[in-house]
Amino acid sequence: MVVTCISSTPSPVSGSRPDRAGARFRAEIVEQPDALLRLLADTRAIAVAARAIGRAGPPFIRLVGHGSSDNAATYGTYAFGLLAKIPAFRASISLSVYYEADEETAAQPVVALSQSGRTPDVVDYVERARRHGALTIAVTNEPTSELAGAAEIVVPLGAGPERAVAATKTYVNQLGAIALLAGAIGGREGEIADGLRRTAELLAGAVDTLAQPAVDAARPLAFAGRLFAVGRGVEFATAREVALKLTETCRIAAEPLTTTDLAHGPVAALDSLFPVWAVATRDPCLPTVLEAAKRVRAAGAFLIAAGDAAPEVQGAAVRLPVPEAPVPVLSPLLSIIPGQLVALALAEARGLDPDKPAGLEKVTLAA
Amino acid sequence: MVVTCISSTPSPVSGSRPDRAGARFRAEIVEQPDALLRLLADTRAIAVAARAIGRAGPPFIRLVGHGSSDNAATYGTYAFGLLAKIPAFRASISLSVYYEADEETAAQPVVALSQSGRTPDVVDYVERARRHGALTIAVTNEPTSELAGAAEIVVPLGAGPERAVAATKTYVNQLGAIALLAGAIGGREGEIADGLRRTAELLAGAVDTLAQPAVDAARPLAFAGRLFAVGRGVEFATAREVALKLTETCRIAAEPLTTTDLAHGPVAALDSLFPVWAVATRDPCLPTVLEAAKRVRAAGAFLIAAGDAAPEVQGAAVRLPVPEAPVPVLSPLLSIIPGQLVALALAEARGLDPDKPAGLEKVTLAA
Repeated sequence: MVVTCISSTPSPVSGSRPDRAGARFRAEIVEQPDALLRLLADTRAIAVAARAIGRAGPPFIRLVGHGSSDNAATYGTYAFGLLAKIPAFRASISLSVYYEADEETAAQPVVALSQSGRTPDVVDYVERARRHGALTIAVTNEPTSELAGAAEIVVPLGAGPERAVAATKTYVNQLGAIALLAGAIGGREGEIADGLRRTAELLAGAVDTLAQPAVDAARPLAFAGRLFAVGRGVEFATAREVALKLTETCRIAAEPLTTTDLAHGPVAALDSLFPVWAVATRDPCLPTVLEAAKRVRAAGAFLIAAGDAAPEVQGAAVRLPVPEAPVPVLSPLLSIIPGQLVALALAEARGLDPDKPAGLEKVTLAA
Repeated sequence: MVVTCISSTPSPVSGSRPDRAGARFRAEIVEQPDALLRLLADTRAIAVAARAIGRAGPPFIRLVGHGSSDNAATYGTYAFGLLAKIPAFRASISLSVYYEADEETAAQPVVALSQSGRTPDVVDYVERARRHGALTIAVTNEPTSELAGAAEIVVPLGAGPERAVAATKTYVNQLGAIALLAGAIGGREGEIADGLRRTAELLAGAVDTLAQPAVDAARPLAFAGRLFAVGRGVEFATAREVALKLTETCRIAAEPLTTTDLAHGPVAALDSLFPVWAVATRDPCLPTVLEAAKRVRAAGAFLIAAGDAAPEVQGAAVRLPVPEAPVPVLSPLLSIIPGQLVALALAEARGLDPDKPAGLEKVTLAA
């Protein structure tokens, strides 16, 4: 496959100087379509992993990761359920690494996600699982990392070096790799690969189109100290990742909630000074998002709607629509874009550097 | 077994008038030791459920619930892993109810948690699972509810009527029921039942002892609008439940994080105006909590330490110690108490009624 560069036109997003605060974060957001095409250029390892899982026919798959990688794992629970028809769960790392109570899950395959491949307890988890005889698959941007060395099969993300502390292109490529893997297990590899190629084009367009709307959307958030990000189903991964971007780059206490989480308590905290970000995508969970949006408005909260169904959300003060995904399960690759762009714009407006948030390193070595 | 009333001495917590705001929430916190003894008075249904799971020998157990019941499900992932040696996962309700992609998990047992037994998508989930032939177990405070009718086996919580909107005694009894069920599967029913009886005594003491310290702890939080609650392992359930109590009763945007979640981004949002609640318990995960507490203090944040290891947390501005649990896996029944009491005290200080938070009903019927 030929990797084509489809984001070469300068845009309000891509036209900044490389030494400016947030320049890396910005450049990596813009680079995402190309990064995704690089993942698609070589899917041999994914095919190997899919065959190995197919042969094992496991009752379930374990997903592990932290931060953005854990958000990608949330996506995995849906992608494996919908495409591979295999239950997948975010497994407790502490149950294995700290309590050492993992003999029973030990035979089941592990998909370990880490951009750097250096997250200590994820490496530890994979080493233990492999000692127990489990099939171990590392999905990482660093194919020579410790994690890659620990796992039986390595799926390289091919995103290219990610230098901003806040993950963007590695997150989108993690989603892409998971969709390809789950699709290959379910015999839908061609459909998912084609869908991802088309998604890369749509991504490039969305990054361009949303650049200015994201700057406008960030303006009313200037003094926001907290926010709820609401999504359901596959888009709960997006709610989690939007919340994490806003928390780490803009210092907002942004909490991800499913639509039912919101109804079971947190809605009581809302008022007109409390912004809520609703991920609205045309999928079977959309009615719960529209219902949650209604409750948010009834509580007087400021509502931001992002996703391909953003125009359908009643009472939203801000709408950030994205193109419809070519295959429904791929929508999270597009609906994260408004979150990344608003995080960039708001960090800039606050004089924060999203490339280097306070107290964070690119590789998190803490337990 | 004789049910003894062990919290009959009037205390700063129990001595309020029944018509006062928060009177129900307060009374139900105080009533928890008795409620727990009522659960222990009849464990026949738990024994039936344990034998049914034991016979099935499933590769995993599915846990479903929302709000506090979902926090109890988090506890379940650890209790089943540690006591029953069966992997248990919080299953996606939307994958079944909205995407209808549940054929593959369908054969595995479901433990459905709902105080009221009326949560619509939990009922729906159980009905679907039962149609697919799964063993279905309802853990509910309402043994004549819809959920109880839908499930094959009903485990009554026996907590007595819970009238405050924010759950307290039903949450503690859910933890107790899960521990008893997991213990019975693992052949440790006697040890867990004895441990819970001793826990009920310790609970009564803790509610009394912590009443005034909780009022003092609430004072500096008067203007807090956000908070992170940090825990790991079994105590992540506590971090989630503390956060939910503070959010729904005090309108704080309180987000639960594991210790690694905190390190992977959110630590960047901390400053001296940002309180962090650390659940510190003497268990294999404690070193990660102490490490997280250090990072919190390095960021200048206000630190509250609650749990049996609270005295060991360096730099905490507030310490709310609880007695050590007689069996380690039971610690969350004790470490939730400071959270409930601070929620009560802070709601009072803010002039809010924890019995009836704005926009919430006791039974959440929204999807």
